[in-house]
Amino acid sequence: MNRLFFLPLLIGAAPVAQPVQTPNEIVAAAPALDWVAIAPSDLMVMTLAPDAKGKSRRVIIQLMPTPFSQGWIGNIRKLAAAHWWDGTSINRVQDNYVVQWGDATEQKEMPMGLVAVPEANYVAKRSATMVRVRNEELAGFKKTVKKMTEKSDWDGVRERSARPPFGDLYAQNTGFYAGWPYGSDLDDRLVWPVHCYGMVGVGRDMPPNSGTGAELYTVIGHAPRHLDRNIALIGRVIDGIENLSSLPRGTGALGFYEKSEERVPILSVRIGSEASDLPRFEYLSTDSKSFADYADARANRRDAFFIRPAGGADICNIPVPVRRAKQ
Amino acid sequence: MNRLFFLPLLIGAAPVAQPVQTPNEIVAAAPALDWVAIAPSDLMVMTLAPDAKGKSRRVIIQLMPTPFSQGWIGNIRKLAAAHWWDGTSINRVQDNYVVQWGDATEQKEMPMGLVAVPEANYVAKRSATMVRVRNEELAGFKKTVKKMTEKSDWDGVRERSARPPFGDLYAQNTGFYAGWPYGSDLDDRLVWPVHCYGMVGVGRDMPPNSGTGAELYTVIGHAPRHLDRNIALIGRVIDGIENLSSLPRGTGALGFYEKSEERVPILSVRIGSEASDLPRFEYLSTDSKSFADYADARANRRDAFFIRPAGGADICNIPVPVRRAKQ
Repeated sequence: MNRLFFLPLLIGAAPVAQPVQTPNEIVAAAPALDWVAIAPSDLMVMTLAPDAKGKSRRVIIQLMPTPFSQGWIGNIRKLAAAHWWDGTSINRVQDNYVVQWGDATEQKEMPMGLVAVPEANYVAKRSATMVRVRNEELAGFKKTVKKMTEKSDWDGVRERSARPPFGDLYAQNTGFYAGWPYGSDLDDRLVWPVHCYGMVGVGRDMPPNSGTGAELYTVIGHAPRHLDRNIALIGRVIDGIENLSSLPRGTGALGFYEKSEERVPILSVRIGSEASDLPRFEYLSTDSKSFADYADARANRRDAFFIRPAGGADICNIPVPVRRAKQ
Repeated sequence: MNRLFFLPLLIGAAPVAQPVQTPNEIVAAAPALDWVAIAPSDLMVMTLAPDAKGKSRRVIIQLMPTPFSQGWIGNIRKLAAAHWWDGTSINRVQDNYVVQWGDATEQKEMPMGLVAVPEANYVAKRSATMVRVRNEELAGFKKTVKKMTEKSDWDGVRERSARPPFGDLYAQNTGFYAGWPYGSDLDDRLVWPVHCYGMVGVGRDMPPNSGTGAELYTVIGHAPRHLDRNIALIGRVIDGIENLSSLPRGTGALGFYEKSEERVPILSVRIGSEASDLPRFEYLSTDSKSFADYADARANRRDAFFIRPAGGADICNIPVPVRRAKQ
């Protein structure tokens, strides 16, 4: 028998023959208590001009919680409150990289009270709450790895059984906190947000403290993790990312639009508590058993289509589930 | 002094003060001999119907060399020779995942001579040539890591100095061969192509040998590496991927277009040797010093914008440079 393809047979021979759930099925079956409401005050709603067919376009961004990037997020709240982005535009769409927006003229006056945030704030000290969550998470991973080792004798699983299967090439450790993926150093003393698909960051010039939050970008390709700790991340797109990722690519250097008429007008940007017709959103608690099962299933696809579970996953391949709440 | 941000200073203090090149600058400076011509017979040209503004749209795919996926590629050459895809369409665009094309009716008769390829061929035995290339590559990485350790005392670099900085979470090893990224097992006996952005694969039904090559997809999001060894990869888009990645997302399940008029007509698919007006393409030899320097720079950005090199990179974050040859 080909040694590569025995895993489904082993699962078939398990004492209790349950149909194996896909990651999406695990999420769909998660109990209501595992879902956490996102406060409208932590959302930012960007309304673009309608597309060529007249269809309205809206992008909803969730802002990060403490301890991440609160200096820039404070600026962003002020910019939104001042309606500063109204009349600006999307200026850059670089394939497999980023969509970027802000004031193409670079002349627009900033509202009062923005602060310069030092680059030291690209990382944060972990809080006591994060320590507790982290310990629970590691305990959960140990259980998961044990289960994997029992079910399979694939080299990779054995080799990795002394540590969580979710290693990383850009940070010594990774984890999830309050619904957000993060990287951390060897002792988990310092934590930082990571550049996954859909994450939103603060454009800057060469000086690393030069980003105010007025110029923003979102990732629309393979995770550019080399940007971690080199630029601030402040949130993620949770709805309508297709209104950015499917825009025509810019033909100028770095994907900037060459003609002003190519730019996509931004009609308004509002904090969610000031926006109308805002659906309620919720995320799957990253402390929940549902999330641990989902992450395990992302790293080890055992559902019918798959003949070979990977035995691991990078943190950007375990996107935190976010959904519209039932009204 | 903040210990996180000393690296640029160290580089500034290096004996020979050279401006540090970006990965793109390293590629631009590579000698002509480091570039390898891609045979037109290894290219496939897909012409789509013009877009709403009448702009022509063409996608150029490079097919993989031996030892990868040659059974499916043989089928694909037969399908192209029979002009089988002419009149088919792009049927699925799922955000952060794939664009898929083929015969939406599933009724079109197949050309004679297609073979059923067993799933065992998702992996290949490495050839003697691959062994030689691999040994040279590992030797090159050792030199690179030594250099990194001298220049920086970052924990992560020290921690990783016993092995190449390009580890992987989905395969025990990774490498590059003849211009292609691959994964391999612990002893490098078995090799397989990896699902990076722009890679092209063979859609299939549940039976793992059910993909003929008539139904194809390309990756337009974060690398879905869990598909490695679960589905065949046969090539990559080297030109015109924006004609796929910027298409409107499908609103049906899995991103399929719900209405037939949303589908994008495929006018023709031809092997490059049969195509007209085909530019010549070349890739940066993955055995060259230029490529090793480029990969090192992708994993350790030391150019002016960056304050914190990552100390590693995943294989899909080191895309092999491909360019149009100077005519």
